Amino acid sequence: MALATTENTTSLDFGPAVALSCRECGARYDLGPIFACIECFGPLEIAYDFGRVTREQIAEGPTNIWRYRSLLPVPVDVTSKPNMAPGWTKLVKADNLARELGIRSLHVKDDSGNPTHSFKDRVVAMAVEAARNFGFHTLSCSSTGNLAGAVTAAAARAGLDACVFIPADLEEAKIVMASVYGGRLIAIEGTYDDVNRFCSELIGDELGDQWGFANVNLRPYYAEGSKTLAYEIAEQLGWRIPDQIVIPVASGSQLTKIDKAFKELIGLGLVEEKPYKIFAAQAEGCSPVSTAYKAGLDVIRPVKPDTIAKSLAIGNPADGPYVLDIARRTGGAVEDVTDTEIVDAIRLLARTEGIFAETAGGVTVGVLRKLVAAGRLDPDAETVVLNTGDGLKTLDAVAGQARPTAVIRPSLDAFRAVIA
Amino acid sequence: MALATTENTTSLDFGPAVALSCRECGARYDLGPIFACIECFGPLEIAYDFGRVTREQIAEGPTNIWRYRSLLPVPVDVTSKPNMAPGWTKLVKADNLARELGIRSLHVKDDSGNPTHSFKDRVVAMAVEAARNFGFHTLSCSSTGNLAGAVTAAAARAGLDACVFIPADLEEAKIVMASVYGGRLIAIEGTYDDVNRFCSELIGDELGDQWGFANVNLRPYYAEGSKTLAYEIAEQLGWRIPDQIVIPVASGSQLTKIDKAFKELIGLGLVEEKPYKIFAAQAEGCSPVSTAYKAGLDVIRPVKPDTIAKSLAIGNPADGPYVLDIARRTGGAVEDVTDTEIVDAIRLLARTEGIFAETAGGVTVGVLRKLVAAGRLDPDAETVVLNTGDGLKTLDAVAGQARPTAVIRPSLDAFRAVIA
Ligand SMILES: Cc1ncc(COP(=O)(O)O)c(C=O)c1O
Ligand SMILES: Cc1ncc(COP(=O)(O)O)c(C=O)c1O
Ligand SMILES: [Zn+2]
Ligand SMILES: [Zn+2]
Repeated sequence: MALATTENTTSLDFGPAVALSCRECGARYDLGPIFACIECFGPLEIAYDFGRVTREQIAEGPTNIWRYRSLLPVPVDVTSKPNMAPGWTKLVKADNLARELGIRSLHVKDDSGNPTHSFKDRVVAMAVEAARNFGFHTLSCSSTGNLAGAVTAAAARAGLDACVFIPADLEEAKIVMASVYGGRLIAIEGTYDDVNRFCSELIGDELGDQWGFANVNLRPYYAEGSKTLAYEIAEQLGWRIPDQIVIPVASGSQLTKIDKAFKELIGLGLVEEKPYKIFAAQAEGCSPVSTAYKAGLDVIRPVKPDTIAKSLAIGNPADGPYVLDIARRTGGAVEDVTDTEIVDAIRLLARTEGIFAETAGGVTVGVLRKLVAAGRLDPDAETVVLNTGDGLKTLDAVAGQARPTAVIRPSLDAFRAVIA
Repeated sequence: MALATTENTTSLDFGPAVALSCRECGARYDLGPIFACIECFGPLEIAYDFGRVTREQIAEGPTNIWRYRSLLPVPVDVTSKPNMAPGWTKLVKADNLARELGIRSLHVKDDSGNPTHSFKDRVVAMAVEAARNFGFHTLSCSSTGNLAGAVTAAAARAGLDACVFIPADLEEAKIVMASVYGGRLIAIEGTYDDVNRFCSELIGDELGDQWGFANVNLRPYYAEGSKTLAYEIAEQLGWRIPDQIVIPVASGSQLTKIDKAFKELIGLGLVEEKPYKIFAAQAEGCSPVSTAYKAGLDVIRPVKPDTIAKSLAIGNPADGPYVLDIARRTGGAVEDVTDTEIVDAIRLLARTEGIFAETAGGVTVGVLRKLVAAGRLDPDAETVVLNTGDGLKTLDAVAGQARPTAVIRPSLDAFRAVIA
């Protein structure tokens, strides 16, 4: 467990971020590479002093996440150093899918357009700035697949060393991608939760104590990157928060920060105050949060994952309790879908909207479909569903069902025979 | 060979496009689903009446190719119907790569950020509008891989049927992608050139004569989409044409249209007139244009492709002669690289800039490197290199060399052993 440092922080530049504060007890700490409260072990979050932020100011920024730099823990000149500049991905008006599902207004926020084709580029961009601030030369992480590639790519561009950790049984595409950018890629025989535990040990050892682990000792900074999904959705809707949103859950960090960002936008007067419902989506084969939700519990019982949605396969989700709280408080829900439903949903999204999602996108679209069918999502309310990853990284999920219609010789007769 | 139609064209809306004109003899035709001159068999191109186009007008448009709609053969309300809205991909300042190569100013135009992760989304967006105009309900193409997926995705979103044709030996990712969006995917036992010949037959048959083939009977419209790469590069450089640009060549269409677009920008006063050099890049295993260039010939001898750069494997390139002409006229060159150089270049780009390119991007970066090393590219001139596709679609090219550093048990001792 890392301790609050007493080091001088005057040379740090995290823009509007002023402190870390404990999500549980509210204790405050100087900005540093720490992530847990020494009073109560609660997770630390960034506290800001935003000042005045206007829509016009944001609109003048670049078409990437840095248009929101005055809402993020980064220096004002963040665009002057090389980074991946992710974000400003498409909010696709999904009329075909809406029609198939019987809902009125649906958008897909498609984060497969990011540089390494998942939303992880957003969070890693924050971790890079934190590493630069704290003087860490090696960027690291425990990853379910997408994070590893996002870290090695960002480290390459930023001129940092990378050493990332994954479960050994990941999809081929994610392994190749995480490796091709250089740095060290260590495959661990075990689940993601084993990998994560190993990283916590490593950070306590002299081997790793000078490394920036995106989702461990840099987690408070890293996590803030997910807020940009919410900012973009609101701005792309014409500065309006949607009525309903479906978000995938692995550790629960993304969902928690999207809720935080909506509240910030309201607090800053950038959007009108309004109620919104947050729906959390898991794969049945790794549904600890959904299970707790359905049982009406506040505590989450860790599970051993077994699902094709490997990117969501976190059996012991750090932010799970907050997901439960947000789903209940906003009037949303937590639901899960089977592997078969995931594959069906990937294919449904592809053939209606031309968006090829990874299994995590199959989870959200599958849960959307299931909730609409059960009457638990309002078909007349403005709805957004996230696709946070890319189908090319989880080809095997659909490869058996996405084959050529026919293989023929190049002749009209042969063609006639197969289309008859 | 399709004939010029005499049908009434008053109900067509192609925005600023007013006619088709023969690139060889200048004969003009009404806008229609035709692609070859009946006088001389030369290829037909779009002729425009642009009127006044300003930078401000463009800047007010959306952050996709439709910001240039007043320069494209599309209706002014093109954004009102569902389409993939590709483009406005990143122009990455590639300082790390520039340093490794010993050049002063280098940008990578990274088209892997497009919806189906190649530049083909740009050209297909034009084909969709042409199909809508001509009342074609089925969108088709012969493809080296990327085009097939771009067509089936765009057709899905636009509500068109799709039937696309590929060589049977394509990369798995391209096959799955082209199939997952629905429509029919026909794999042909043969080369791309066999597939292309088959499609020409099909268009002359009642089976296919009511289909819109993106790169055959809709080719004049389709090809214009590549102009947007040039418009974006110029705008992203602050309305300036680069001194040197390296472009991959399969059929040669893209390169030809980038040159056309630079000339349009100069003609419209959107950029200052200046000389620029266009460098064409091929894979040694399919280098008919490069071979003709080196031999000082004007005619291109078809070859049978054998290279890992399958997306560029066109042995009989329709626009090859124009590529030769442009490379010579602008003071550029045509060069090729081996499969090994392609793989090395993919890895170089990945570890310096965090960009994972497909083999076509390995070809351009490889040729860039080769030309700089030979002193044939000016290291002090402003240079742009295109990455037109995505590494996730050609995993096998690097999979053997992009492996985990080690596979270990989750223990510090095991980790110590492998990093020692
Ligand atoms: C594609 C994708 N979507 C969603 C998530 C969920 O992220 P979180 O851990 O913030 O819940 C992940 C996590 O790895 C992911 O890879
Ligand atoms: C990734 C990629 N780059 C470049 C090209 C070359 O296109 P052109 O036929 O316009 O020369 C292709 C063609 O399929 C391609 O797939
Ligand atoms: Zn506390
Ligand atoms: Zn002619």
